[in-house]
Amino acid sequence: MGLHFIGIGLSNEQDISLKGLELVKKADKIYLEHYTAVLNVPVENLERLYGKKIELANREFVEKENIMVEEAKTKEVAFLVVGDPFAATTHVDLFLRAKQAGVDVTVTNNASVLTAVGITGLQLYKFGKTTSIPFEVKSETPYNVLKDNQGLGLHTLFLLDLRPEEEKFMGVREAITYMKKLEQKIGEELFDDNTLCVGCARLGSPDQMIKAGTMKEFSQTDFGKGMQCLIIPGNLHFMEEEALALWK
Amino acid sequence: MGLHFIGIGLSNEQDISLKGLELVKKADKIYLEHYTAVLNVPVENLERLYGKKIELANREFVEKENIMVEEAKTKEVAFLVVGDPFAATTHVDLFLRAKQAGVDVTVTNNASVLTAVGITGLQLYKFGKTTSIPFEVKSETPYNVLKDNQGLGLHTLFLLDLRPEEEKFMGVREAITYMKKLEQKIGEELFDDNTLCVGCARLGSPDQMIKAGTMKEFSQTDFGKGMQCLIIPGNLHFMEEEALALWK
Repeated sequence: MGLHFIGIGLSNEQDISLKGLELVKKADKIYLEHYTAVLNVPVENLERLYGKKIELANREFVEKENIMVEEAKTKEVAFLVVGDPFAATTHVDLFLRAKQAGVDVTVTNNASVLTAVGITGLQLYKFGKTTSIPFEVKSETPYNVLKDNQGLGLHTLFLLDLRPEEEKFMGVREAITYMKKLEQKIGEELFDDNTLCVGCARLGSPDQMIKAGTMKEFSQTDFGKGMQCLIIPGNLHFMEEEALALWK
Repeated sequence: MGLHFIGIGLSNEQDISLKGLELVKKADKIYLEHYTAVLNVPVENLERLYGKKIELANREFVEKENIMVEEAKTKEVAFLVVGDPFAATTHVDLFLRAKQAGVDVTVTNNASVLTAVGITGLQLYKFGKTTSIPFEVKSETPYNVLKDNQGLGLHTLFLLDLRPEEEKFMGVREAITYMKKLEQKIGEELFDDNTLCVGCARLGSPDQMIKAGTMKEFSQTDFGKGMQCLIIPGNLHFMEEEALALWK
């Protein structure tokens, strides 16, 4: 018995590790976290591979209920997380609650968008703080984070909001619109129409899209369905420039 | 035919994804990058699982030779990387060379230490720039990166050097010594004996060790064998404090 945090990667059911699959096969209950990220395939694909039923876990269930922790006292409970389990801050809380309740906990790591963006050629160690762009709250945080990172010449990764239950994913285009509104409001001239950006959609998938272009180009570019992210690079090393040329 | 970048995770042969294993099984040649990181098991464990021979690839071979790119024009070549393939900057160069030579390239992502440190409870989006502590060159970079990150209240992750061919891995203790020498030399009082640190060894492994303690404690703590990393946290959220208490 125990609670098993299992990262399942970024794209489809084939991204789970052998270790992760073994734990899933032994599990009495399987939950899939379904609000910080989603794969690019339906849940049925996972159920077919595992030969088991999966229950979707929304934010309320994971953060407020204690059902998984209680069940894990007598059963093998698998908690599947798209990406790497603790890349999403929210799951550390569940980990703590389980530990404090004396439940056995295991963690199975997997790929995260935070390192998958390395394929753009931008060097991961040159990224500053990561930030998110939300659908509704008109937060100034993304702008302020960009400002701090730019001050140090660092790249900024913007994770874009999603509402999987409504099949709604923020696109690069909307993110640009959001940032432009903040620029109009705050006006520190952190970027303009000619600023170089990198957009990624469905990273880690066979049909992933990676593109480098100006902000102006991006406000007219459709990156398609699924999860997307935006990068505004800081100072570029010549190797990074060479890599970005590949995505133009 | 093609060149397949395959992340194999952090701990042992069971960390490869189903997708990665399928590519390895189809490969005509398998190389394992053997200088930026290693698993905690011998290469023989991988060979047994794959049923194939693996050739170790050192820095010279990956960065200077063009053998993999040439072979990938007529064969299926698997290039195994511990962690996530492009978390190590150096592999973007091989990716570019392959693309420029017209070779088909695929990427299979996997877990990286950069997100596995999330298990400490420190929030990943609050990390600033990542830096490395080398064995020999007395570089001031780690100190300067820490200073910049601290200025913004951000956490700093120090990756520690390794020489797998000599089975030599820098430990948390040596890293503390290195940083203390820089403090003596530069003297901006970024930290002292009471500064809270987090040390990790063999992250992602069943025998991983995670510990929070003062710099003084850490200069007497043995984290054992294998790859290690050091974190000097910035400003702590109360949830982060609660999580760190678990590792004290």
